[in-house]
Amino acid sequence: MAAKSNGPIGEHSGRVLAGPTNPMVTPLLTDLYQFTMAYAYWKAGKHNERAVFDLYFRKNPFGGEYTIFAGLEECIRLIANFKLSEDEIDFVRESLSPSCEDGFYDYLRGVDCSGVEVYAITEGSVVFPKVPLLRVEGPVAVVQLLETPFLNLINYASLVATNAARHRFVAGESKMLLEFGLRRAQGPDGGIGASKYCYMGGFHATSNVAAGKLFGIPLRGTHSHAFVSSFMSPDEIIDKSLRSSDSQSTCEDFVSLAQTWLSKIQWSNSLNGTFGETNQSELAAFTSYALAFPDNFLALVDTYDVMRSGIPNYCAVALALNDLGYKAAGIRLDSGDLAYLSCEARKIFHTIEKEFGVPGFGKTNITASNDLNEETLDALNKQGHEVDSFGIGTYVVTCYAQAALGCVFKLVEINNQPRIKLSEDVTKVSIPCKKRSYRLYGKEGYPLVDIMTGENEPPPKVSCELASA
Amino acid sequence: MAAKSNGPIGEHSGRVLAGPTNPMVTPLLTDLYQFTMAYAYWKAGKHNERAVFDLYFRKNPFGGEYTIFAGLEECIRLIANFKLSEDEIDFVRESLSPSCEDGFYDYLRGVDCSGVEVYAITEGSVVFPKVPLLRVEGPVAVVQLLETPFLNLINYASLVATNAARHRFVAGESKMLLEFGLRRAQGPDGGIGASKYCYMGGFHATSNVAAGKLFGIPLRGTHSHAFVSSFMSPDEIIDKSLRSSDSQSTCEDFVSLAQTWLSKIQWSNSLNGTFGETNQSELAAFTSYALAFPDNFLALVDTYDVMRSGIPNYCAVALALNDLGYKAAGIRLDSGDLAYLSCEARKIFHTIEKEFGVPGFGKTNITASNDLNEETLDALNKQGHEVDSFGIGTYVVTCYAQAALGCVFKLVEINNQPRIKLSEDVTKVSIPCKKRSYRLYGKEGYPLVDIMTGENEPPPKVSCELASA
Repeated sequence: MAAKSNGPIGEHSGRVLAGPTNPMVTPLLTDLYQFTMAYAYWKAGKHNERAVFDLYFRKNPFGGEYTIFAGLEECIRLIANFKLSEDEIDFVRESLSPSCEDGFYDYLRGVDCSGVEVYAITEGSVVFPKVPLLRVEGPVAVVQLLETPFLNLINYASLVATNAARHRFVAGESKMLLEFGLRRAQGPDGGIGASKYCYMGGFHATSNVAAGKLFGIPLRGTHSHAFVSSFMSPDEIIDKSLRSSDSQSTCEDFVSLAQTWLSKIQWSNSLNGTFGETNQSELAAFTSYALAFPDNFLALVDTYDVMRSGIPNYCAVALALNDLGYKAAGIRLDSGDLAYLSCEARKIFHTIEKEFGVPGFGKTNITASNDLNEETLDALNKQGHEVDSFGIGTYVVTCYAQAALGCVFKLVEINNQPRIKLSEDVTKVSIPCKKRSYRLYGKEGYPLVDIMTGENEPPPKVSCELASA
Repeated sequence: MAAKSNGPIGEHSGRVLAGPTNPMVTPLLTDLYQFTMAYAYWKAGKHNERAVFDLYFRKNPFGGEYTIFAGLEECIRLIANFKLSEDEIDFVRESLSPSCEDGFYDYLRGVDCSGVEVYAITEGSVVFPKVPLLRVEGPVAVVQLLETPFLNLINYASLVATNAARHRFVAGESKMLLEFGLRRAQGPDGGIGASKYCYMGGFHATSNVAAGKLFGIPLRGTHSHAFVSSFMSPDEIIDKSLRSSDSQSTCEDFVSLAQTWLSKIQWSNSLNGTFGETNQSELAAFTSYALAFPDNFLALVDTYDVMRSGIPNYCAVALALNDLGYKAAGIRLDSGDLAYLSCEARKIFHTIEKEFGVPGFGKTNITASNDLNEETLDALNKQGHEVDSFGIGTYVVTCYAQAALGCVFKLVEINNQPRIKLSEDVTKVSIPCKKRSYRLYGKEGYPLVDIMTGENEPPPKVSCELASA
């Protein structure tokens, strides 16, 4: 049994917290009605009444059975630094009615979150509907101002972390997952947030350099189709020399070495004349990339034709690198039948390992990308594939299968009086009163159920039935 | 016939453009592979080769027949200020291989977009698949760095502008559309971007204060359910006085005035005893809100029961305001059968106009919200409704029906040599060469078709058949 509530913010007051990651997260990142209400509360002398709000969602996303809670840190960063600037107060003044009294703006000038307490479930936890993720207590006018930014910061964060965890689950533990979604994300920090929360949800790395810098997330990336097609032929490579991995020798013409290996592969008995002419633009691009990154040569092999050109060109360059003591990093497939192509590529890698005596070549890393999602991962698993890493973009970062989580922020108590939001739709009725939530664990150490009690009810006791608790 | 291409950036060089709206949009907001490729280009001595890339999409979103192009201004802001800081260069150095040569970082230090030309369709235009939205020319290594941020800044912007325009079309020209999506948006600038591009797509206003400040978009907002349920009864209202609209007199007890009106409505013959007891917490909230905003009283009427409590409470307060020369702003419905409730409310407003002789009361503004989207707007239209304004959130800002637009950025020429990206999927094959695009108009002034020509082909001529152009 574990009580899942952190202390109030005040308890951390010894630490100075930086502001929100995105400088656009300011006290104005809220709905106008939070300010109109603040004025009405202030005008009615109610603004300092102590209110309790629960932040929760009503339904797990993606038709699933769980949600990963994320976004808490950014909420804390917001309230730890919550203060309206003069410029912001002027804008609120312009936005409200000219009849609003000046005293209100003096009040706004003094507003901060020192009177706000937040009780929250630990970020990254598995959570379920209706159990409050956050309980926010404080002066009603101030806590209302936090409603919109808290929902904004938690809704997408939790949605994308959950989406990432679901992809993680389908891909299987042994596979590496890479988030490649920045270009398709919903705006710049749709991309940056996606990188952060996909990592939290179980991804290994991102392509997003800004997210790598901000959060220390491992970065991955090699080259694109444009890089391949920007080359004409190996003749244009001017500096052809490459030092060996141990720096003991230099190959003066790495281009020829790769071309020699290409011929060997083309004439290999065990490959049975699988390969004919390969694309020279592609060979030039791979060779150039290997000259730039001999210790991290990973090639995108589908610009022209995976089996007839991309794979043999990759193998030729990888074998040339092997001669100089470098281990090539692998291939990426970005189109076509990924299951089939990965299996065919694997066979060739194994054949080459045997034929040319290159230990480990059979285990060459195969990365797949191209509009992957839960369904396509599942289909690949069913077909059987040889992919080691998946690069996932659009579907994970935009949460294509369900683009929003419906967290809400409901008043459950004011001045110690319980409050309820009624609705003709029974799922929308809020649960009144300040509550505590507990996760109960069985003897085997697995969680069994989450329960909520009233704030002043005794907590459930170990080894006692709930009814007697 | 109109050639839709703007001049190169250089032509605007007299103006200094501010940086991107979101300070997180930096040269690092890109995929790592743009930097690994930049290094490989540099290492091969190819980094300054003149490349031409087209940015376009392959399919209109939402199963529709058009797209609104948006996001251009933010792209221009990025390149007008494109410069890597020392700190950013250090991070790139950490992220690449230690074997990368120092000269590359010296090169990065000097990188800007002065050699980059962008030809673009005007932001806000209706656009179609395959026609380049942007043609970007410049040194291949620099233009590659722009691929990811350009796609990020255009994909979501164009998607949400298109979504907004589609909602605008379904709602009909006479209706007001309000964007209420900040809390459900994909991150902070998912919200801010949504507000900007919904406005571009035809919305009238947003609830998002930060977007109002940044872009001058009109703001809307009144109060929430929490505001209503935070009140207990009218007894708690301390300052009950309200000055008349013309400042000539003061009503000392506005609360009693509203209560008197409530009785009149309850005992009205023409309303036939429609109303019994109304909720006192709600009456208190409405009265308080009216005291705070007598010139902009808009009430959310569904916290308890729309017809039995919300509407009569609204009418009582609105009629009391009317006595003092104020015109109430209307109601908002946020749950239930919006078509039915809006029609019933309208009947009552008309009855009150007649019964109590309040001109214009029948035309009271009715706003509807609650998970609205294209389908629900269409269903409301079919049922018949009396809604004047729609508040739309989740579905418009997250583009729930299709959460991503698939703009791509393809190399079409390098060193004056045409380049093509082949693919087994024929829709993914790129169209090589530098091109111009034209929109042809018929005599009646309506656009007929967009066509593309090679850069050096003669433009189509007015009144000449295309074949002869």
